[in-house]
Amino acid sequence: MAEHDAVEVILAKRDGGELSDSQIDWMIAAYTRGAVADEQMSALNMAILLNGMSRREIARWTAAMIASGERMSFDSLDRPTADKHSTGGVGDKITLPLAPLVAACGVAVPQLSGRGLGHTGGTLDKLESIPGWRAALSNEEMLAQLGSVGAVICAAGDGLAPADKKLYALRDVTGTVEAIPLIASSIMSKKIAEGTGALVLDVKVGAGAFMKTLDSAQELARTMVDLGTDAGVSTVALVTDMATPLGLTAGNAIEVAESVEVLAGGGPADVVELTVALAREMLTAAGVDADPAEVLASGKAMDAWRAMISAQGGDPSAPLPVARETHVVTAPTSGVLTRLDAMAVGLAAWRLGAGRERKEDPVQAGAGVTWHARPGDTVAAGAPLFTLHTDTPERFDRALAALEGGFEIEDGAAYEATPLILDRIG
Amino acid sequence: MAEHDAVEVILAKRDGGELSDSQIDWMIAAYTRGAVADEQMSALNMAILLNGMSRREIARWTAAMIASGERMSFDSLDRPTADKHSTGGVGDKITLPLAPLVAACGVAVPQLSGRGLGHTGGTLDKLESIPGWRAALSNEEMLAQLGSVGAVICAAGDGLAPADKKLYALRDVTGTVEAIPLIASSIMSKKIAEGTGALVLDVKVGAGAFMKTLDSAQELARTMVDLGTDAGVSTVALVTDMATPLGLTAGNAIEVAESVEVLAGGGPADVVELTVALAREMLTAAGVDADPAEVLASGKAMDAWRAMISAQGGDPSAPLPVARETHVVTAPTSGVLTRLDAMAVGLAAWRLGAGRERKEDPVQAGAGVTWHARPGDTVAAGAPLFTLHTDTPERFDRALAALEGGFEIEDGAAYEATPLILDRIG
Repeated sequence: MAEHDAVEVILAKRDGGELSDSQIDWMIAAYTRGAVADEQMSALNMAILLNGMSRREIARWTAAMIASGERMSFDSLDRPTADKHSTGGVGDKITLPLAPLVAACGVAVPQLSGRGLGHTGGTLDKLESIPGWRAALSNEEMLAQLGSVGAVICAAGDGLAPADKKLYALRDVTGTVEAIPLIASSIMSKKIAEGTGALVLDVKVGAGAFMKTLDSAQELARTMVDLGTDAGVSTVALVTDMATPLGLTAGNAIEVAESVEVLAGGGPADVVELTVALAREMLTAAGVDADPAEVLASGKAMDAWRAMISAQGGDPSAPLPVARETHVVTAPTSGVLTRLDAMAVGLAAWRLGAGRERKEDPVQAGAGVTWHARPGDTVAAGAPLFTLHTDTPERFDRALAALEGGFEIEDGAAYEATPLILDRIG
Repeated sequence: MAEHDAVEVILAKRDGGELSDSQIDWMIAAYTRGAVADEQMSALNMAILLNGMSRREIARWTAAMIASGERMSFDSLDRPTADKHSTGGVGDKITLPLAPLVAACGVAVPQLSGRGLGHTGGTLDKLESIPGWRAALSNEEMLAQLGSVGAVICAAGDGLAPADKKLYALRDVTGTVEAIPLIASSIMSKKIAEGTGALVLDVKVGAGAFMKTLDSAQELARTMVDLGTDAGVSTVALVTDMATPLGLTAGNAIEVAESVEVLAGGGPADVVELTVALAREMLTAAGVDADPAEVLASGKAMDAWRAMISAQGGDPSAPLPVARETHVVTAPTSGVLTRLDAMAVGLAAWRLGAGRERKEDPVQAGAGVTWHARPGDTVAAGAPLFTLHTDTPERFDRALAALEGGFEIEDGAAYEATPLILDRIG
């Protein structure tokens, strides 16, 4: 590998230039082994955030992060594979019903997931509320479960894109999270290294998402679809609304319960809609012809769920943990709920203990927020609007403060529903 | 002091906003005590470099760096004080004759200087080639010498603007040296904390300087003059040429010898011109009416030089060290020397051992480059053009490579001299 110098690479990007393949390869490799210091990488990240990167640079940056670690392969499976990634939202439990649903349709789902940080929840945190369930699998265990059950949701091993792990932690403390090239390469390096054959991206947009505007969400989606396609992964993205939280719950165990309702044929309409739409995209991308709505109705997705949870040590029949304390917020007036802010709900759930402030913090399995109406519903003054759940009631005050101004009830207002799926890119 | 958060401050500047006084005070204080990490400050530096700072922000940033350490005062002296700062150039030995000259005119000169890093030399490195001379003085020794001799050139103590010391080292390795707000605040925080009553800035522009264009040099000069004026220091700036190196020498002992020639009434015309011009500005800024050209001719400046060197342990009569090896480069053709590139000469001197690569490296007292013609002079093919000096002859090859393309000799060319002093701001 050609020798470069960190300052040379920083200056090139700072002054608006394009980094060469060789500069990118060197920088990522040297950073991973500690020869480039955190303060040098953080200056480069800020220059990338402010000056951007070309499609070629982003692809090479992603490839260099993949090359920093191991690559998995599912070639030995008798089925195609498909994975889904969401950029993160409030009440976004879609992975839970989706993975077993797609598995039940005949496509293996190797779903590497993360823990929550900040106001968006983490899929692993949710599943860990199921007694006995464990997130850590070896590559061999993962492959065996994909063969037997067809679906696995687990933590990414340390060997996958270690450069990304180090970079992500750095970006978090240096104000460089919101750079599209860095977000896209972070997500796609892990997904490509994971070895999935097809990938469906759920790019969230709105108050509760990282991307606040449709334009920026579309740009992120397009960037990631290009990266996947260039790397030989059949990739498509849906851009979906995150102005309003998904379903009726945000937390851990309460989101598992809602997911099980969906698998049982019930559940909130928006969660069902998005689950089926993403399943359809995953099946198409994997080249399998099946109707996920039909499979969901048949109960086969529920069977796959129970098998998936059991295979990872969980008891799918065990009662889920509940929070020790609840607090009900009632509607102050009567009328139509015209706005329910995803960020307000996410912050409240986080403050109740469903999420963590530092990555070493534990989460409360039972904590979170349940809402009893969705935008468009009519509510009566004094009727329950939110139920807050926590083991530590001293948290109620700060959660209530987060909800203040987070919803609107208008008497006699005509409510115009906005679509859940805003765009499809692929 | 109000509590802030490093990421909050970074985001504000990243997104193009103005930092509040309270954010700036907190950030500098927290960085100085280690509560803000290097990678956070480096992200902020890059955002400042790319998004800029308002005059108010730069003034506050400078004030916060001054507040991170002690402030000196020369109020007890019976004379006004004036200091000079050069942004750094090749062959720039002006401080050496200037400080004793201004002292001989009745203004005390408390000159805190630095060591060289990269292709520009350091005043302290040059003076340390004088047998016995020492750069480190206590504040009390400095004050006493100002009273007795009227001039002191010494290293800045650790107590002066410690935030700047930390920031400067960080900027050096993170590609954030060339930001005008950061350069201006770095220089001015030390000069204001030092307590000088008047300050003359020599802002270099051209191939051998940090500032490559007249516009950027003028902007830096204006920014620093504003900072000094706002802080109650009588400040003026000259913008001077650094396309061509100053005088006929770049190194350490060889620059001391050239400076002594100037004090003896000889020396290269450009060195004399700039020394006298800067002395005039310092005297005017300090409110003293004297003619430095007359004082220089009188020999009083040489007396002050000898007293200044002796007071710091040096022997002004001792022979200066000479390099063990020399190599002569002859003119390849006859004609007029139309270009002599300051960067090429500076790099050659650096590679010969006059400068250091890392700040802990020693320098060679005798190393450097002498040139035997200046732009406009006629040279004959085969006559000496450069003499290279070093203790380590294995360095000649890389020094010669630096000089390649660094000069031009044109037969029968009409040479048009460019002025040395390009602008005056104040």
